[in-house]
Amino acid sequence: MGTLPQSVRIVEVGPRDGLQNEATIVATDKKAQFVKMLAASGLRDIEVASFVHPRWVPQLADAASLIALLEPVPSVRYSALVPNMKGLERALEAGVRRIAVFTAASETFNRKNINMGIRESIDVFRPVVDRALREGVSVRGYVSTCFVCPYEGKVAKEKVAEVTAALFDLGVDEVSIGDTIGAATPKDVEITGLHLLQRFPVTKLAMHFHDTYGMAVANVYQSLLMGFTTFDSSAGGLGGCPYAPGASGNLATEDLVYLVDRLGIESGVSLAMIRRASHFIAAELGRGLPSRVLQTSAGEKTA
Amino acid sequence: MGTLPQSVRIVEVGPRDGLQNEATIVATDKKAQFVKMLAASGLRDIEVASFVHPRWVPQLADAASLIALLEPVPSVRYSALVPNMKGLERALEAGVRRIAVFTAASETFNRKNINMGIRESIDVFRPVVDRALREGVSVRGYVSTCFVCPYEGKVAKEKVAEVTAALFDLGVDEVSIGDTIGAATPKDVEITGLHLLQRFPVTKLAMHFHDTYGMAVANVYQSLLMGFTTFDSSAGGLGGCPYAPGASGNLATEDLVYLVDRLGIESGVSLAMIRRASHFIAAELGRGLPSRVLQTSAGEKTA
Repeated sequence: MGTLPQSVRIVEVGPRDGLQNEATIVATDKKAQFVKMLAASGLRDIEVASFVHPRWVPQLADAASLIALLEPVPSVRYSALVPNMKGLERALEAGVRRIAVFTAASETFNRKNINMGIRESIDVFRPVVDRALREGVSVRGYVSTCFVCPYEGKVAKEKVAEVTAALFDLGVDEVSIGDTIGAATPKDVEITGLHLLQRFPVTKLAMHFHDTYGMAVANVYQSLLMGFTTFDSSAGGLGGCPYAPGASGNLATEDLVYLVDRLGIESGVSLAMIRRASHFIAAELGRGLPSRVLQTSAGEKTA
Repeated sequence: MGTLPQSVRIVEVGPRDGLQNEATIVATDKKAQFVKMLAASGLRDIEVASFVHPRWVPQLADAASLIALLEPVPSVRYSALVPNMKGLERALEAGVRRIAVFTAASETFNRKNINMGIRESIDVFRPVVDRALREGVSVRGYVSTCFVCPYEGKVAKEKVAEVTAALFDLGVDEVSIGDTIGAATPKDVEITGLHLLQRFPVTKLAMHFHDTYGMAVANVYQSLLMGFTTFDSSAGGLGGCPYAPGASGNLATEDLVYLVDRLGIESGVSLAMIRRASHFIAAELGRGLPSRVLQTSAGEKTA
């Protein structure tokens, strides 16, 4: 089998990718409290907001006022999603120092998601990334549907590599490889992952799994066996589809931390403090969160 | 990485290991209906009942009357758990043709679970297995806490192999290696699994995972990479602890079938028909079941 890495870096996306998919809109000060708890857990990268048009994602319409409430923590980078130049301007005005741009490996998904072809989206992001870098703002890239597309089915590894390369060409310092609908298996991760590792340094790639079909932890494990060391996750598994109660969205940060802790891999993140943050946001949302580890700890507490 | 097997055999334990841990007692005719739906899905091994004393597990007190209701299906083996000679006698009277006996790899767990040391439990089972085999009844063995014990912590692989060997010596034809509290990681599975494969044929070992911490699918994947081909699972992930709503018990059959289907591994089991059986029993229990795949299909249906 593969050799496991000694440490991993976790990029917490709960406040953005998680909350944007929740039915309930959380008050800005409660979000700030949530982010503060996440920062206290040892996480060093937290995506806190999105500057897409508020009409698209009302859950995140308070991006600027949220960022104004965050206390700077020296070891923590806060980032925000930015869809275009207008979004970048709002982000810069809010004082954001790291942004993320996003496209997909599937043409159909990208058109349905952001109403642009992949090439067109890269062209839209070119001046955005240029401007950000000139302002000293670092940029992360996201590629959605890197394994399976809900419209096109299986996505070719070559297409993922091509889009990833296009994002690096723009000047992003890291690309997050997303299993947007959570349908990838470890075999898919192995095939596409090995292809990407032949072209790009592992330190510049993040794996971004969703747990829709319960495959996320297995996919992380497969990634670890191949040497991947950066993983996106969401406290509590925030972001489940509102129409399927209990259904999971992003890989839960708790489940990821539990796995790496038990594998003897350093993450620098306190499981107990992530749990605390998840309990807090779960109470705000008025629902249980899907993380298995969180649910188990809830059981242990009351048993 | 490892080479994946071409096919797997799934041992469905939902009606026994699942329902015995549910707070609600399901009516006997509803259990029979559940088993019938499971048998129709293509499953060939279904553990349907337990002949432990009804006082211990009231959920399964109707073992004999349930078995009387089951229609024989030529391709399907029904089995029942048996704790001692008295249990075997009841099982034989009910017409059971396959039984399962059980012990643990942790002394403390075994004492707390069945009030006997491991060696003592093997001695108790010796005449039970002898008698069963003489009656032409085949016997499976279970070993609990093969990776982590809630009382003793990490369990030595040598201890697991020793207990497994003792069960084979009794005459069981298969031993199920259980992660009773769901705390194993793929690394634990690799270490203990490789040790067992050096001593026993892979066709005589089953892997039995619980999804308490969300590790079950990853543990199955690690097992597949090592060549294991028999897995225990429970429809819907039945058997979650009643005090932690949504918390998972056994690995869900749906999640297992989804994984192997998507890996191109034959199981002979219809995912759609397992889902149907799980929806049926979930309605009887009056609660949602923890399987991610089941929850997602529920969402797809109503979205």
